[in-house]
Formats: sequence, C-alpha cells, structure tokens
Amino acid sequence: ILTKKIAVLAGDGIGPEVCQEAIKVLNAIGDRFGHTFTFDHQLMGACAIDATGDPLPEETLQACFEADAVLLGAIGDPKYDNNPAAKVRPEQGLLRLRKSLGLYANIRPVTAYEMLIPHSPLKNDRIAGADMIFFRELTGGIYFGEKGRTEDGAYDNCTYSRFEISRIAHLAFKAAQNRRGKLTLVDKANVLETSRLWREVVQELSPSYPDVKVDYLFVDNAAMQLILNPKQFDVILTENMFGDILSDEASVIAGSLGLLPSSSVGDAVALFEPIHGSYPQAKGKNIANPIATILSAAMMLEHFGLLQEANLVRYAVEEALDKKIVTQDLASPIMSYSTEQVGTFVASCV
Amino acid sequence: ILTKKIAVLAGDGIGPEVCQEAIKVLNAIGDRFGHTFTFDHQLMGACAIDATGDPLPEETLQACFEADAVLLGAIGDPKYDNNPAAKVRPEQGLLRLRKSLGLYANIRPVTAYEMLIPHSPLKNDRIAGADMIFFRELTGGIYFGEKGRTEDGAYDNCTYSRFEISRIAHLAFKAAQNRRGKLTLVDKANVLETSRLWREVVQELSPSYPDVKVDYLFVDNAAMQLILNPKQFDVILTENMFGDILSDEASVIAGSLGLLPSSSVGDAVALFEPIHGSYPQAKGKNIANPIATILSAAMMLEHFGLLQEANLVRYAVEEALDKKIVTQDLASPIMSYSTEQVGTFVASCV
Ligand SMILES: CC(C)[C@H](C(=O)O)[C@@H](O)C(=O)O
Ligand SMILES: CC(C)[C@H](C(=O)O)[C@@H](O)C(=O)O
Repeated sequence: ILTKKIAVLAGDGIGPEVCQEAIKVLNAIGDRFGHTFTFDHQLMGACAIDATGDPLPEETLQACFEADAVLLGAIGDPKYDNNPAAKVRPEQGLLRLRKSLGLYANIRPVTAYEMLIPHSPLKNDRIAGADMIFFRELTGGIYFGEKGRTEDGAYDNCTYSRFEISRIAHLAFKAAQNRRGKLTLVDKANVLETSRLWREVVQELSPSYPDVKVDYLFVDNAAMQLILNPKQFDVILTENMFGDILSDEASVIAGSLGLLPSSSVGDAVALFEPIHGSYPQAKGKNIANPIATILSAAMMLEHFGLLQEANLVRYAVEEALDKKIVTQDLASPIMSYSTEQVGTFVASCV
Repeated sequence: ILTKKIAVLAGDGIGPEVCQEAIKVLNAIGDRFGHTFTFDHQLMGACAIDATGDPLPEETLQACFEADAVLLGAIGDPKYDNNPAAKVRPEQGLLRLRKSLGLYANIRPVTAYEMLIPHSPLKNDRIAGADMIFFRELTGGIYFGEKGRTEDGAYDNCTYSRFEISRIAHLAFKAAQNRRGKLTLVDKANVLETSRLWREVVQELSPSYPDVKVDYLFVDNAAMQLILNPKQFDVILTENMFGDILSDEASVIAGSLGLLPSSSVGDAVALFEPIHGSYPQAKGKNIANPIATILSAAMMLEHFGLLQEANLVRYAVEEALDKKIVTQDLASPIMSYSTEQVGTFVASCV
C-alpha cells in the first residue's frame, strides 16, 4: 500500500482533458488497491507563459522535484509556431524541464493492437505482431546545443559526449535483454561525427551484453524500414532528433498517435507523458484520445513497482479498444465516444 | 538534334549495373531522335578510394565540370560504415561533389504508380493518387557544418544562411506554381533556430507567390502525415537532413525505393541519380531495379529541354511496370526479371 505524490503539468490544448482521464484511472486504481495518489497541479507551457511570463515557473520545477513522479499532458500553441521572432516559447519550458530533471532517456513502446489493425494505414500483414520500444536520448544533441543567429544566418550545434551516449545505451541493452534480445542503433554515421561516436560507444558496450544482437541502420533507411517491415524491430536506440521523428512516424503502426505513451527517466524523478502534442484544434471539444496518457499512467505505476496495477490498466484499455469505446481518431464520429466517456469506461474496468 | 556529353559516376555496389541500363535507354533515345550522347566514365566513392585513395579524384570533378550533365549510380560500402574511425569514406566524395558543383537543390518526385499500389505496404485508398515532389536542400545544414571530436565527445554544426534558404525556396515556389499550388515547409521551428530562419524566409517570400498556398509542418508530424495521408502533399520544401529522412520514408508510397529518381541542380552542371543506395548485398547479381536510374535519365532529358524524349522514357517505364517486366523488389523471385532484362525492355519501348 503506497502513498505517492504526482506533479501534474497538464499544459496546453488537449493536455488538461487527457490528464484528467489519466487521473481518473489512477484514482480508480488507488480505490481498488488501497493506494493514495495525490496530485499537485502546476503550470507549464503556453498556459504558464500567459500566467507568469515563464513557460517553466520556478514553482513548477520545485513541485516536480518534490514529487514521486510527474504526469505531463502536452504543451504548445500555434500562436508561437508561426512567429519565428517569439522570444519566449512553450517548448522552452518542456526542454528546460527535461534538462533540469536530467531525463536523459525517453522510452516509447509501440505495439500494434490486434483490434486496431484494420484502422492502420498499413496493410494488416505488415504490422500484425509488431512490437518495438524506442530509447530516445532526451537531453542532448541538437535540441540542447548552442544555437543562435549570425548576421546573415542561424546555427544549431549538435553535440554528444561518450557519457551521454553510454548511459542510455546501457538502459537500451538491458531492455533488449528482457525482450527479444535485439538492439538497433539508428544513426547517420556515414555523415555525422556524433553518429560515429554513437556507433563507437555502442560497439564498445556490445561485448558486455553477449545475449543482445546489435544492428546498425542509417536513419534514412530506418524511416523506410519502419513502414516496410516493422516486425524486424525490438529495441531501437537513437539520438534526440532522430528519435523525435521516428517515434512519431512509428505511431502509424499503432493506428493512432493518440495511443502512444512514454516515460522519461534519468537522474531524479521520472516523467510520464503521451507522445502526441497539444492538438489545439481539438481543445475543449472533449474529443481527444486519452489512452496515450492513461497508458503513460500505467508506465508510472510500473515505475512505482506496481506491476499488477499497471497491467490492470493496460487490460482495461484493451477492453475499451475491444468494445470500441474509443474516440474519433479510431472510429467514425457517429460511432465514437468522448474523451470523458473513454476515461470513465477505462476507470470502471480497473 | 543535340549532342550531349554525360559524365557517368557509376560508383559502388549496384551503381554500375543500374547506370548501364540508363545508358542503354539514353542510347535508344539517341538512335530514335538523332541525338548523340557520349559517356565519360569516372571514378567516385569506394571504388575511387580503392583505385586512388581519394573518393573524388580531381580528374572526376574536372570531367563533371566539362560535361553537360552528370549521371550518378550509387556510392557506399559497408566496410566503412561499421568502422567509425575510418578517415576516408565514400560519402565524402559525394558530399564534396555536391558542394563543388553547387548542387543546392535535390529534387525528388514521388508518385504512386497505379499498377504498383498492391505492392505498397500502405493501404490502397491511402496512396492512390498521391503525387508529391521534394525539394531537399543539398549543400548546407548539418551535413556541411563544422564537425569533429572533443576530448570526450563529438559535434556536428548545423548552419543555414538566408541566401541558402531563399534560393531553393524560390525553386520550390515556382514548382508549386506549375503543379497544384501548394507548398509545405517541413522544419522543427519549435526547437531549432535554423528552422525558425527557414520559416522566416519562406514567410517573407510567400507574398511574391500569391497563387501558392504555404503550409508549415513540424518534421515529426510530417513523418507521420506522409504515411497517414500522403495525398495532402504537393511540393515539400525542407533542409538537408530532414529531406534525406523524409524522402526515403516516402519511397514506401511508390512501392519501392528502386523507383525513385532525383535531379540535383544549382550553380553549374546538373546531376541525376536514383535516391537508393549502393545495395552491396545485390552487387553483381543482376537483380537491382534499374528504374530509378532510368527515370533519373528521363529527368536529365527534360533538363536538356527534350520533353518529348523524357516523356517517352516515362511511358516506356510504365509499360514495363504494366507488363510486370520488373525486378525482385516488385515481384516474387520466380516472376521477376533481371536488371538487364528490365533495361533492355524499357529501351526497346522508346
Ligand atoms: C514539443 C516538442 C519540443 C517535443 C520534442 O520535439 O521533443 C515533442 O515533439 C516530443 O516528441 O516530445
Ligand atoms: C549516401 C548519403 C551520404 C546520402 C545522403 O545522406 O545525402 C544518401 O542517403 C542520399 O540521400 O543521397
């Protein structure tokens, strides 16, 4: 029986709506198993800029450090996206949060749910049985290198140290040991010096994990192979930018971006968030898919050591998918359910 | 009636085999229309390293400058890929060639051929009618920024100047005017300073092309949208690294990487090459698909102003696809034809 304090950064767009459903499910788990989850709501992203001028107020960061885990909705607002001159942006809050909490490994499982296969843009035989997990480096690379303007141009620096690579590589190797024993490093070692360093470090670590078969793929080829033959992948290890692109791409295997959870782990408290964005067009409409956030909450339960609870949430999600209690992204509007209805149904099944 | 001198850099792996078929087709066009094409074969890539120690010998570069166009096969050899310490690499030759010839715009059309739709990993209704063209910046970005090692790490610098962006953006806007009037800029402006500069420059140019509707997509979203709904795209403009990844990914729409041609244009002579790599496993087996290279030759004919000839080549390729005179990537081994057979058939149809 546990008591856990969860910092909730619901964020922008559909963030608050999907977080609310995940909280509903966590509370249902608490009721059933006798755990107590408390939720500390804090501002981050565009909503934090509006309220305080800062996308990651000091108070929010403090609350995260004091929590046992962080649940994040989504951040981002189009009013910043098409204004290249904006000095303060919601994304800065997210990036600073990742860096401040030392969340260097973003873990994104992608599974083809049997019942959603008809919904995928991919042909059924290509995806049935696909089951992979991304280990995306999250606090280095071009996201965090020095960036700026020159008189006539702009620059972004991509850097990686051996240490930054090896700490996430160890996690990925270990995950592969507990899965099907295959690790694919995705890089662009034929062009980038940082990629050659990734390959070097992974090659050096490889003998310590003799039960893991290591494969190397160039990122352009990986982007193609993910669609051509997703079943070949088990654990995919890659740097920050490539991981961003490929894991979003891989969402088509699951059938919807609205299904994919993630956890981010590192030096301090761990963070759990759906991989989708703030989807501003859907804000307040009660149509966003809460499942990615609910499954992120399941990853949180697992992180707390509550395996049975985590599996029950996953089972409840499958129940919802099975019964087609799903949002618009997975059904025709007339056959679909609201964000709240899906959350309530999942909560009722745990 | 024209006389044209073509520098041929057949390169590594399957490069020589596919180039030979493109030359066969160009010669057939020459015979039919009375043009004279001469071919100047030169070394580049791993074969050039083996012969001279340099992936782009001075003589090769000279021959390109003296030619009316360059036909490139493919370069690359696995013996360099898994040796991060290799100092000389085939890719350096290709990158130096692009830079030396000032080939700043790499143009990659992607079409879903009716008869190949059953072969695509994507469901038919998603791709029927898809028809897009990538404008990938080719001589800037992280490919060409300063790169190197530090004591404990590595770095790659990504830089872009306004000039580098606007010259290719103009080409993309003009192409959109001659197509369906839609331009999509793919960037990561929520994170990268260079992307914000891309967005700025494109926004500034946009009023000069009032008949072109401009859209902006983040690269992670674009990687997903390409598969979810490829028909939404007309002209896609993007920087070097993103273009590398997304255009390879888009090959699944066409049904095979072995079908996609490209042209690269810029300050001096233009270059034509398939977007696929050197596919070393297939080398010498007479199984590689020559169509991407043959269609690259068609782009070359168009570049020479020989529209009728170019269209005839494209028609001959469709004839081959229609009659299923295709290589293994598009048919079961038992029903497939050799590289040479496909080339000979296409040449016989022009
Ligand atoms: C919002 C954005 C900065 C972020 C990223 O690129 O990391 C998002 O796309 C993600 O994948 O979490
Ligand atoms: C071989 C490699 C350097 C090259 C690139 O990344 O540009 C290739 O992938 C391409 O797309 O032409």
